[in-house]
Amino acid sequence: MLLEETAATLIDKPSAASRPLAEIGKEIDLAIVVGGDGTFLHVTRGLAQFDVPLIGVNLGRLGFLTDIAPENMTSEISQMLDGNYQVEERFLLSAAINRDGETVHTSKAFNDVIVTKGEVTRLIEFETYLDTQFVNSMLADGIIIASPTGSTAYALSAGGPLLHPTLPAIMLVPICPHTLSDRPIVLSSDSVVEIVLTRTRNQRAHVTFDGQLYFALQDHDHISVRRADTVQLWHPTGRSHYDMLRAKLRWGGKF
Amino acid sequence: MLLEETAATLIDKPSAASRPLAEIGKEIDLAIVVGGDGTFLHVTRGLAQFDVPLIGVNLGRLGFLTDIAPENMTSEISQMLDGNYQVEERFLLSAAINRDGETVHTSKAFNDVIVTKGEVTRLIEFETYLDTQFVNSMLADGIIIASPTGSTAYALSAGGPLLHPTLPAIMLVPICPHTLSDRPIVLSSDSVVEIVLTRTRNQRAHVTFDGQLYFALQDHDHISVRRADTVQLWHPTGRSHYDMLRAKLRWGGKF
Amino acid sequence: MLLEETAATLIDKPSAASRPLAEIGKEIDLAIVVGGDGTFLHVTRGLAQFDVPLIGVNLGRLGFLTDIAPENMTSEISQMLDGNYQVEERFLLSAAINRDGETVHTSKAFNDVIVTKGEVTRLIEFETYLDTQFVNSMLADGIIIASPTGSTAYALSAGGPLLHPTLPAIMLVPICPHTLSDRPIVLSSDSVVEIVLTRTRNQRAHVTFDGQLYFALQDHDHISVRRADTVQLWHPTGRSHYDMLRAKLRWGGKF
Amino acid sequence: MLLEETAATLIDKPSAASRPLAEIGKEIDLAIVVGGDGTFLHVTRGLAQFDVPLIGVNLGRLGFLTDIAPENMTSEISQMLDGNYQVEERFLLSAAINRDGETVHTSKAFNDVIVTKGEVTRLIEFETYLDTQFVNSMLADGIIIASPTGSTAYALSAGGPLLHPTLPAIMLVPICPHTLSDRPIVLSSDSVVEIVLTRTRNQRAHVTFDGQLYFALQDHDHISVRRADTVQLWHPTGRSHYDMLRAKLRWGGKF
Repeated sequence: MLLEETAATLIDKPSAASRPLAEIGKEIDLAIVVGGDGTFLHVTRGLAQFDVPLIGVNLGRLGFLTDIAPENMTSEISQMLDGNYQVEERFLLSAAINRDGETVHTSKAFNDVIVTKGEVTRLIEFETYLDTQFVNSMLADGIIIASPTGSTAYALSAGGPLLHPTLPAIMLVPICPHTLSDRPIVLSSDSVVEIVLTRTRNQRAHVTFDGQLYFALQDHDHISVRRADTVQLWHPTGRSHYDMLRAKLRWGGKF
Repeated sequence: MLLEETAATLIDKPSAASRPLAEIGKEIDLAIVVGGDGTFLHVTRGLAQFDVPLIGVNLGRLGFLTDIAPENMTSEISQMLDGNYQVEERFLLSAAINRDGETVHTSKAFNDVIVTKGEVTRLIEFETYLDTQFVNSMLADGIIIASPTGSTAYALSAGGPLLHPTLPAIMLVPICPHTLSDRPIVLSSDSVVEIVLTRTRNQRAHVTFDGQLYFALQDHDHISVRRADTVQLWHPTGRSHYDMLRAKLRWGGKF
Repeated sequence: MLLEETAATLIDKPSAASRPLAEIGKEIDLAIVVGGDGTFLHVTRGLAQFDVPLIGVNLGRLGFLTDIAPENMTSEISQMLDGNYQVEERFLLSAAINRDGETVHTSKAFNDVIVTKGEVTRLIEFETYLDTQFVNSMLADGIIIASPTGSTAYALSAGGPLLHPTLPAIMLVPICPHTLSDRPIVLSSDSVVEIVLTRTRNQRAHVTFDGQLYFALQDHDHISVRRADTVQLWHPTGRSHYDMLRAKLRWGGKF
Repeated sequence: MLLEETAATLIDKPSAASRPLAEIGKEIDLAIVVGGDGTFLHVTRGLAQFDVPLIGVNLGRLGFLTDIAPENMTSEISQMLDGNYQVEERFLLSAAINRDGETVHTSKAFNDVIVTKGEVTRLIEFETYLDTQFVNSMLADGIIIASPTGSTAYALSAGGPLLHPTLPAIMLVPICPHTLSDRPIVLSSDSVVEIVLTRTRNQRAHVTFDGQLYFALQDHDHISVRRADTVQLWHPTGRSHYDMLRAKLRWGGKF
């Protein structure tokens, strides 16, 4: 067993050696993530390249990603280590920012890549291209490019649909668009999404990755997003994605 | 060249023999459909089993499916017959209604299968299952199960997202749901959708196929929907799906 | 004490004389309605002309209008009869259907007047006028003209906002409109709303009043809606409209 | 005739004396505002206390507030000065920010008062009170408190309804709320709206007035908003608010 380095500092007397997130993936066969969905997003981006399956133990209220309650942690995980688990494959996104023909930033995201306005000045102007085809121009607070995993996050608040977690699709969701007929678009995860900032109207337009990483944008920046690594999530046998949706979205049970 | 039988009756001096829609598919290599999107839906359901590609010539205002203007018909189609076309593969849905363990009705649909209330009494009660997993119970005017092709039809008016026409996905869109957190769900076209009518509250709940075919439902009916045949649509070279969306939805062009 | 005639037939040994709803209003000073919101709507329409305040006792799940639980009925109502109540004034709508220059039907509604399609054939075409000014033409499943009371009913499922119950306003909410930029409109309750059916596309377009009364429409019918009677609802002291909204809409309480 | 001081600097050889916006209102009987809606908002806030009617001449694309095209300016305004105009009364909002029991900032707004997150960290937590009654707690990007005039501005993009410009109502519209059943609320313009920031989660939550003025917020700040001055807008006779809505929202005309 290895502890992630930052996590290890939170433990009084760590019972195992620790490694930085960037290195731990090379040495482990399975990652048990204890925290909220935010922690899980961070760890998944860090481990995605290493082909290490992930189990999420939830601290705090029930998460979409961390689906094991801490009080059941010991029993559920030991059952899973005995082979009683189900595998769900999800994918990450990778984004590149191009400026004057050069790539000035790249990042992965598990939930979403969000291009959005800075403070105060509402509305940025941008064009969207899908597989190099022009889609439309928008005047909006921004746009969310989300994976199926991200469809239960910010995209949902902005009016996006729920995508089944394993659907091979990417979704675009405009944020408070000026044109009322702008709608979410769902397309193949083999597609390449490109957002071209035509006019930021101020100095603070930016892109965020999972709402955790930040990069400042300039007029004429190109943000391209495509599918990246696949990760395996392990869940206790019998877990249903829809049970969780019902609980989180307060949907009705059977009549 | 063969004419479809009903269409032939509309022509003064038909220049070719005619066949019923149910039989014409066996003899032709290509279908040229002249009419609106409604005609195209009808013909596609009729020809789907025969592996015949379709070209749509639009009468009336621009259609989503019939994308050749009649004034360009001769030149565009002769270019297409010379090999200058692009192929788009779309799929149909097939639905079966089960009552007391027996299949009492089946139908195909190209756009959507809609389970909905009769007149006056608003709200029907039903449960949704995806791949046999319980999703939720709803009290609503109804629910739309749409193909990507149907995402620009009724589903769009009911708040659904746009699905790229070739995305292998099926979408569920609730119609005026009582629970405000009910949202459209997009899932793999390999999934089986099942709607169980728990309480119709009157005698007039029903299912429609492409809004053209009608079947009356009873309490406890099960409606199951899955992916059916793939059809080929032929389009003029260079046609962009997004150009049409921009025109139809009055989106903005480039700034 | 008097019983309403139909209600009296539901009671084993009625302890009081009974009167039809159409007449009881002349003889009573206060109406106690026991039932669900549907019953309350029906009774309010019947009593509106008589200036009789109403108290609602709820059978079944908590209602928006019937806010006294049956288990507290005796104590709460006796407190109210002792003068501990708060008065809320709400208004009804009245609608008239004009055909070829003649009024062919009139009705009141407490929640809403709904002009909508018949079965199967989706979409009716109509024009909206507010205080004789042309607003727009719509192709939609229909349109809801709602009072503030109706803003928590069907209008909410169709995407309308919540209106404070005593706001002097009428609201128009389109049902699944074809044009995606059609939006709910809120206007003064002094306004006259007029819907002109330009094309019903079939024989079954109709108007409903509170979802309880039905009238079949024809092409070119004019439906005009305006504010009608004010009624007094009596509530237990300290009752908050927002407490009820939070409970019904499953909003969060204080952090 | 007097020129506003800043405007005067834009003119080559000003033909009249100039005054600062804060003072000009004392000396004039009518203000002619030449610019876009943004300019009109700014001038209206400045003149609101002086009881000076306003006429808007639009530079750039058609505005909601500035409804005279520059090419018709001379003829239309001279007709209006001859008495051929219609008066529309609209009201402004006034907001006060309270911190630890003290008012630390006040401002007027014609469109809206917007309480919103800073960059990057999505979601602020706040409670809403209407006339001192607790409404709900929200986790959202923010909330818009809009006048009827503001209902065609940011509130519309965030999903709010259209309010008739003279309706005596204030509207609350949540921005990308976490709870999917949070909806716009419309209430009397006599009401006092109070937003209490319970947790900003970072240092950059803020309030904007008409999207033009900015004030940084802290945890536990109270933002209270109420109706302020009424202003008179003068329009050419025969102008219809709905003609403008149809043009701006690309609604359909008569069939």
